[in-house]
Amino acid sequence: MSTLLFENVLGLFETPEGGYTLRDASVYIADGKIVGIDRAPAGFAPDRRIDGRGKLLMPGLVNSHTHIPMTILRNAADDLKFHEWLFGRIMPLEDKLTPEDAYWGTQLGLMEMLRTGTTCFLDMYIFTDAIAQAICDAGGRAVLSRGIIDSDGGGKQRLREAVEEIERWQGRENLSFMLAPHAPYTCTPAYQREVAQTARKLGVGIHTHISESAREVEESVAKYGKRPPAILEETGLLTPYTVAAHCVYLDEADIEILVRTGTHVAHNPVSNLKLANGIAPVPELYAAGINVTLGTDGAASNNTLNLFRDLGFAALLHKGVSGDPQAVPAAAGLKMALTNGARALGLEGKVGKLAEGYAADLTLIDLSHPNLRPLNDPLTALAYSASGHEVELTMVSGRILYENGAYPTIDAVRVIHEVERTCGRIGLRGT
Amino acid sequence: MSTLLFENVLGLFETPEGGYTLRDASVYIADGKIVGIDRAPAGFAPDRRIDGRGKLLMPGLVNSHTHIPMTILRNAADDLKFHEWLFGRIMPLEDKLTPEDAYWGTQLGLMEMLRTGTTCFLDMYIFTDAIAQAICDAGGRAVLSRGIIDSDGGGKQRLREAVEEIERWQGRENLSFMLAPHAPYTCTPAYQREVAQTARKLGVGIHTHISESAREVEESVAKYGKRPPAILEETGLLTPYTVAAHCVYLDEADIEILVRTGTHVAHNPVSNLKLANGIAPVPELYAAGINVTLGTDGAASNNTLNLFRDLGFAALLHKGVSGDPQAVPAAAGLKMALTNGARALGLEGKVGKLAEGYAADLTLIDLSHPNLRPLNDPLTALAYSASGHEVELTMVSGRILYENGAYPTIDAVRVIHEVERTCGRIGLRGT
Repeated sequence: MSTLLFENVLGLFETPEGGYTLRDASVYIADGKIVGIDRAPAGFAPDRRIDGRGKLLMPGLVNSHTHIPMTILRNAADDLKFHEWLFGRIMPLEDKLTPEDAYWGTQLGLMEMLRTGTTCFLDMYIFTDAIAQAICDAGGRAVLSRGIIDSDGGGKQRLREAVEEIERWQGRENLSFMLAPHAPYTCTPAYQREVAQTARKLGVGIHTHISESAREVEESVAKYGKRPPAILEETGLLTPYTVAAHCVYLDEADIEILVRTGTHVAHNPVSNLKLANGIAPVPELYAAGINVTLGTDGAASNNTLNLFRDLGFAALLHKGVSGDPQAVPAAAGLKMALTNGARALGLEGKVGKLAEGYAADLTLIDLSHPNLRPLNDPLTALAYSASGHEVELTMVSGRILYENGAYPTIDAVRVIHEVERTCGRIGLRGT
Repeated sequence: MSTLLFENVLGLFETPEGGYTLRDASVYIADGKIVGIDRAPAGFAPDRRIDGRGKLLMPGLVNSHTHIPMTILRNAADDLKFHEWLFGRIMPLEDKLTPEDAYWGTQLGLMEMLRTGTTCFLDMYIFTDAIAQAICDAGGRAVLSRGIIDSDGGGKQRLREAVEEIERWQGRENLSFMLAPHAPYTCTPAYQREVAQTARKLGVGIHTHISESAREVEESVAKYGKRPPAILEETGLLTPYTVAAHCVYLDEADIEILVRTGTHVAHNPVSNLKLANGIAPVPELYAAGINVTLGTDGAASNNTLNLFRDLGFAALLHKGVSGDPQAVPAAAGLKMALTNGARALGLEGKVGKLAEGYAADLTLIDLSHPNLRPLNDPLTALAYSASGHEVELTMVSGRILYENGAYPTIDAVRVIHEVERTCGRIGLRGT
């Protein structure tokens, strides 16, 4: 593995109080890790020096909820209601997808995430083998979870397969796993219990959707006499190792349940707006002490995997809705996308910080773009001025995966060709 | 003037019904105008041919509300309440600015707008001579309006100067003018009448702020017993040539006033969220038949001049707030930023459309970016997937002002240097 030195770069560091500070630094990389800040380890000889003047170095962003192969379905179903979107349009298209399609869709998603500074993500989809292979071939970092449902009675078989996939792929430095009972409305309570027990046995976390739309909450109350968080708590799916995506429709009792179970909430502001599901009560979640993270959701409902965009929405949206310009300050938005995300994914202490001993999962931003000048406040510039397209270089475990338009580990032309061929085959335009 | 041909480009055309369609086309440019679509005019010989394969050609965006020199104050006052932001932080900093500062701040704003596909904007600021000079030197198109207030009794002098500035600069192809009584809370009703009369005499439009914050509406009711639109209608400032920025706090009677006066509304979603002012009732304005346009506001409250970003917010925000995924469909969002903007600025028939006889104010987008692939629906991709940074080339009146990172008419390094020097002088960090 190569060694690398970022010299005289503006680094984004976490303060002991949990805020952020920016200062000039030199950052030493070896064996896939950050091995020194400002001081070279003994005998350090860089294979490459990167002149960091006019650049900002930060931890790679953590996207805590996505469905990466759904890049295939980008702009395939816009301006539709959630249930029509999911059951009428997306699921019939997904029925036509193969593992090979998922492989190329994953590599396209990686291209987009690396291009916009994301180095780690929590995914929920099917075709785990193909997704894991695509990530290992490209070199990214992910927590994978196979979405499983039981509404048709085939849940046991799916759970068995999900466990087999984990056993097949576990032990790699760049991959970890969760179980993903899709949602309370697609998994019976009995099935939820079974999944919860299996997760405990395997020692893996849970990734699920909670209260994304008003309709699913109403249906839950009509069917079970309870709102979704109460059901999930009873079946054992809410734990300190659970990531609950969306959580748009929560009442006070729901929030209490999330607090006492230690559940992490992945906020997906763009997807929730686009599908007209609404706006999650993020300031209330914060006030309750819940660990709130940031996700893009899939490209069919966002329609990008650019977490900088969701960071901007998260930091801006709640100010306007609450009337409080400090509802989600710049630093809080950034933290959702960094350490909060790492914690939810079980990667605390490993990713999300620019600090010695952490993985060298890093994003280098070119500060010469006019939207970042003058640089009166680089911290708020990241939340309110950056688009994500100012990213010049992205690395995972010290390996450069994106640099100035090029992907050293990905055949970008072929990836786009293969994905668009899939679109043609399943009846989308795709080109 | 040079001639230019875009060959085999995916063009964004308006349909006779006012929607949009995308199709392959060749576009011929001469004398600063679009002189042919698909068919060369007699004797046409291009000085340059641009291979349009894999590119999308569209009219340049129209930013219908900004304060361009405020790029100087980007990220200088974040996470503050509107009144504290404006009176406590921004105005004291602005007091220190000189015309030369405004010149460089304007060129920085132009760099950013051209970089992200905007070719025309409606501005409100002071230092009109410096701003006009900066635009003429760089080659952009704008409607300028000097912001005038009367709260200190100096209004007559300011109005006289504004008229002199118009007389000094009028007659240029790329510039037109409006009068800009800043807001009902900074201009007495008597002053508003005087400005309205002067505008009629000069034959220019009006640019003002209406009901941006809840507080100004409350204060208007307390002071005059009337809400701001009623006052402005009485004083003659609401006309079919008036652009009213913000309009966040409107009741039904306010909307009726805007309808019957033919006032255009410039929606500034990012600025309204960032300053915690709220969310303008855009679906209601549309339903009432008001011409709604799109603005960034100044860089101190956005914090970019990237209209693609405001387009994304406008198209997404109202879906989530209203619960209707078609509240602002992709095409409606795009239209706000194109023909609606042109109409509000008095430039209908001149800019905002890819059609013969229109000015060659054009934006070329590189479709190879991963966030635009697969290209299942290029129209929704512009609203939901594009960041603005996919822009490869921007031209105004057939003259290329931005291409692949370079500004042929602007000394970009000097502009940033001068702006950051100003920031240092007025007590901001700036670098």
